Amino acid sequence: MISTPLKHKPNFPISTLYPLNMFPRKLVVIQPLPVAKGTPEFQASVDAILDEFAAKVPDELILPSSVTSNPPKNVTNIPRECGLLSSEEIDITENYDAVALAEAIASKKLTAVAVATAFSKRAIIAHQLTCCLVEWFMDDAIAQAKALDEHLERTGQTVGPLHGVPISVKEHMPLANHYSALGYSDTRKLDTDDAQMIAILRKAGAVFYCKTNQPQAIMHLEGVSVYGRVLNPHNIGLSAGGSTSGEAALIAMRGSVLGIGTDIGGSIRGPSAFCGIYGFKPTSYVLPLRDFLGEAGHLAEMNILVAAGPMCASLRDMDLFVSVVLAAKPYLEDPRVIPIPWTGLTGPKSSGPLKIGIMTSDGVNIPQPPVLRALEWAKSQLSKQPDAFEVKPFAPYQTARAMANINQAYWPDGGKGVREHLAKTGEPMFPLTEWTLKNVDPNVELPPSGLLKQRVDRDNFRMGFAQHWTSQDVDILICPAFVGPACEHETAFYWNYTAFFNYVDCPGVVFPTPIKALKKGEEGYPEEFKEPLGEQDTHIREMWDKGDFEGAPVALQVVARKYHDNLLFGALDQVKDALGLP
Amino acid sequence: MISTPLKHKPNFPISTLYPLNMFPRKLVVIQPLPVAKGTPEFQASVDAILDEFAAKVPDELILPSSVTSNPPKNVTNIPRECGLLSSEEIDITENYDAVALAEAIASKKLTAVAVATAFSKRAIIAHQLTCCLVEWFMDDAIAQAKALDEHLERTGQTVGPLHGVPISVKEHMPLANHYSALGYSDTRKLDTDDAQMIAILRKAGAVFYCKTNQPQAIMHLEGVSVYGRVLNPHNIGLSAGGSTSGEAALIAMRGSVLGIGTDIGGSIRGPSAFCGIYGFKPTSYVLPLRDFLGEAGHLAEMNILVAAGPMCASLRDMDLFVSVVLAAKPYLEDPRVIPIPWTGLTGPKSSGPLKIGIMTSDGVNIPQPPVLRALEWAKSQLSKQPDAFEVKPFAPYQTARAMANINQAYWPDGGKGVREHLAKTGEPMFPLTEWTLKNVDPNVELPPSGLLKQRVDRDNFRMGFAQHWTSQDVDILICPAFVGPACEHETAFYWNYTAFFNYVDCPGVVFPTPIKALKKGEEGYPEEFKEPLGEQDTHIREMWDKGDFEGAPVALQVVARKYHDNLLFGALDQVKDALGLP
Repeated sequence: MISTPLKHKPNFPISTLYPLNMFPRKLVVIQPLPVAKGTPEFQASVDAILDEFAAKVPDELILPSSVTSNPPKNVTNIPRECGLLSSEEIDITENYDAVALAEAIASKKLTAVAVATAFSKRAIIAHQLTCCLVEWFMDDAIAQAKALDEHLERTGQTVGPLHGVPISVKEHMPLANHYSALGYSDTRKLDTDDAQMIAILRKAGAVFYCKTNQPQAIMHLEGVSVYGRVLNPHNIGLSAGGSTSGEAALIAMRGSVLGIGTDIGGSIRGPSAFCGIYGFKPTSYVLPLRDFLGEAGHLAEMNILVAAGPMCASLRDMDLFVSVVLAAKPYLEDPRVIPIPWTGLTGPKSSGPLKIGIMTSDGVNIPQPPVLRALEWAKSQLSKQPDAFEVKPFAPYQTARAMANINQAYWPDGGKGVREHLAKTGEPMFPLTEWTLKNVDPNVELPPSGLLKQRVDRDNFRMGFAQHWTSQDVDILICPAFVGPACEHETAFYWNYTAFFNYVDCPGVVFPTPIKALKKGEEGYPEEFKEPLGEQDTHIREMWDKGDFEGAPVALQVVARKYHDNLLFGALDQVKDALGLP
Repeated sequence: MISTPLKHKPNFPISTLYPLNMFPRKLVVIQPLPVAKGTPEFQASVDAILDEFAAKVPDELILPSSVTSNPPKNVTNIPRECGLLSSEEIDITENYDAVALAEAIASKKLTAVAVATAFSKRAIIAHQLTCCLVEWFMDDAIAQAKALDEHLERTGQTVGPLHGVPISVKEHMPLANHYSALGYSDTRKLDTDDAQMIAILRKAGAVFYCKTNQPQAIMHLEGVSVYGRVLNPHNIGLSAGGSTSGEAALIAMRGSVLGIGTDIGGSIRGPSAFCGIYGFKPTSYVLPLRDFLGEAGHLAEMNILVAAGPMCASLRDMDLFVSVVLAAKPYLEDPRVIPIPWTGLTGPKSSGPLKIGIMTSDGVNIPQPPVLRALEWAKSQLSKQPDAFEVKPFAPYQTARAMANINQAYWPDGGKGVREHLAKTGEPMFPLTEWTLKNVDPNVELPPSGLLKQRVDRDNFRMGFAQHWTSQDVDILICPAFVGPACEHETAFYWNYTAFFNYVDCPGVVFPTPIKALKKGEEGYPEEFKEPLGEQDTHIREMWDKGDFEGAPVALQVVARKYHDNLLFGALDQVKDALGLP
């Protein structure tokens, strides 16, 4: 158990913080910064859950205290070097993506049991380094895998295209016989059934072995929950992003190759970018969401729909995931799902050069230097092939208006529901929850006319953006996935680069670039971007100056028009060699 | 000006009725039953609009008072027999559908001017018999047509697939230089621009010549507006249905071949069925709706989306309409539109026999005898071809729950908005407006959590219905379009057979059958349906016993799963010969 000093004063009173030594138990989990605490009764209930978790972890999978008490900034190599994994387990977890794993298991090069074992082991190691899990069930996974191996042995057939592929699952998604919660402790429950998407993946042969950490309210672009703070594996002084925090950290640690996220403001794309993996937020209801948001539903969805999608380590794994889910015809069970046939990477190709818009700035916040560098890199890579790509600037469109509107649309009840959830158990309100609520009046619940106004404003905005897109004359748009590389803990304040595309409901894929943030002080804003655009931008520059982002991966986002998810993947196939996407 | 006696006491105090002789002006419009009146100032403003309308009608197009003072029940033959139309005009208006008109104009067999003239003339005749119009602009139409004829002459090319085809437009849809209103007089305005769909049709060559009557609030299944009551051309003692009332009456009078409706509870399908024409309510946002609901939007749309669609006299005209609109890629302007490629009548065909479910009753209200007869007819026609069709019963699914929920979802503000609109001008609240509001508490505006609960209930219902559909194992469903043939005025109380499919957002096409209601007393409920299912059904039987439905056409409805609009049209192509659909 370690604590690293705070780099800068967080945006909340230090007195509300939990004592630093928050995991005084068998399973030590690195936590450089504490999380707020609730009532003593509440903390006792959290402790009981953490104790139960810890009790399941065998001694031989516990990292030596020499590692957890003095970790390097970058913990991604520890699983390989800690001695807890065999060389076969290292090979399985490091040298395959989901497509390759499925092939290796189907061809009996690997057994499902070996794969489940390797990922389960690596996942619990990753957890000790990043706090990425909320549940871990290796025994259960091995039992699933054993049944799959026996089936293959007996029939000569796989059960489906994901036969034996381990998939990690975000906490709020119901998985039979495990716990889910909707970002508040009072909603935690033992599920008896799989959610629709989980059931489809299970039927296709997926093996489930863990559930992953998410922030309070599932509404931070970081991963701070009552169970601890998810750390960025590339630099534990940084956030793993959120709200699908645990997935991103776990996949970056190679404790998973394929996980499931949800995104209403950046919750797939933000953490994917922060941790240097792939993430796909489809247009709403291209993929099913049934059972993911609880029986009572999610108020923000009155005007902003959540989307579920894959997080993984390769482009083709996103395609595999979507193909498998849609092949099950989920629209027959949930007619919200739009039955557009999925063509994935084989999707529509431009007849002439692919027209690619590059949006360097959203007009409100200039990206921090490594992101600017990544955009330059992408532009330069693509410009090398003028026959294949027509690269042009893409002008930003009314970012401030979009953000003002979406921040209101998230909380039509003024946050009343959040406060009620927390009050039920004595759960503390976390600083980033307060942050997301800061623009809404806590005393105002919108009348129906207020919700309708939000709807009309949203639709008018979407039509305006569609017209803007036409005026820019591009097939796809490349832009930042976040205003910087992974941010320091408790500073993911500005979601513009992802939330904008929730507001307009466009599909977006985040992909890693070869760019990484340099050591503190080694790079600054280029001359042309020296001048901040406003208050937020000034704040972002302050955070850049103070922060240590060393080693943080930098990702970019590729966006297509709403419902043009197939076009997006067709275009990704066209750019993948130029951008070096596996 | 005539008045026929009330067949039975209407459901509102007689004292609120407008004096019978409501059109004491040059243009006499048959009105067998008055409409409620507002304040004197309000009525003066309505009179001014009606006077302006009347002033535009040349004397040579005014029906002799011998016709309007003593009309037959069935007025459909009057345009042909009244002597105001030439034989060419009778031919043009009676022997072409939109596809045939487009072909005839493109091949110069007919001029656009001749076609515009014929339909304009017939429309104003139809109006005097059914009160189907709110605006009529023959001069404007002829000018449009002349320009098209000149273009064709000059270039040898049509401007588009609808070159010269006249299209009638529902009052609330903005058409440049004409008036629109959203069902309340205070919303009436002169539009400067076409709505998106209108602009697409205009660009494709359509000629606009009139706007058609709709009821107050656009929320009756009849057509009672401050401008008068729309009559059913087949029996003027009956309603033309609503809310796209004027379109249905006008098309049945052959004063139009193609019109545009909107439907949130049956407003395309109801009037199409009542008047014996075709109507298509697509899944929401298969077709564009932009600008149709005013700048402030429609509160019901928070949970029940409106759909726009064609009303016409042939199956292939519906296909033409949708093809033309979608070929313009409306999703590029309005990203709410879902870009599923339209395949229309060439759409997916079943590999084996087409599985057709027949739902005779919704489990709440048994259809009145002529509708039962039509269902039997369809069943018998389809059963003659067992290799082509597998006909089976389709069990109803929780109709009462759907209706209770949708009736709440229409009015999340308890009707406050309606009352505010009416109060602004002194417009009276019509009895059928009161009827639609009768289930909501006028003092309750739902908080966001209440709207969310409606949403969640709706989605759960839709998923339940999807599962039910799977259990019934059918491709398409045939069922009533209304509980009876056209109803008597002021009695369209029960919308179940259409509104259910708004609640589940399934596409539905209404098509005419050869069945017509017989003379009063000539048919009753068959033995197996003697027993009413409940209070509503008892009421419906009372109305059947009292009413005179002679000559009312009977239509049926074909439904497919949500978003399966292409499948619906593919299936319609398969059944069209068996059911005699042109």
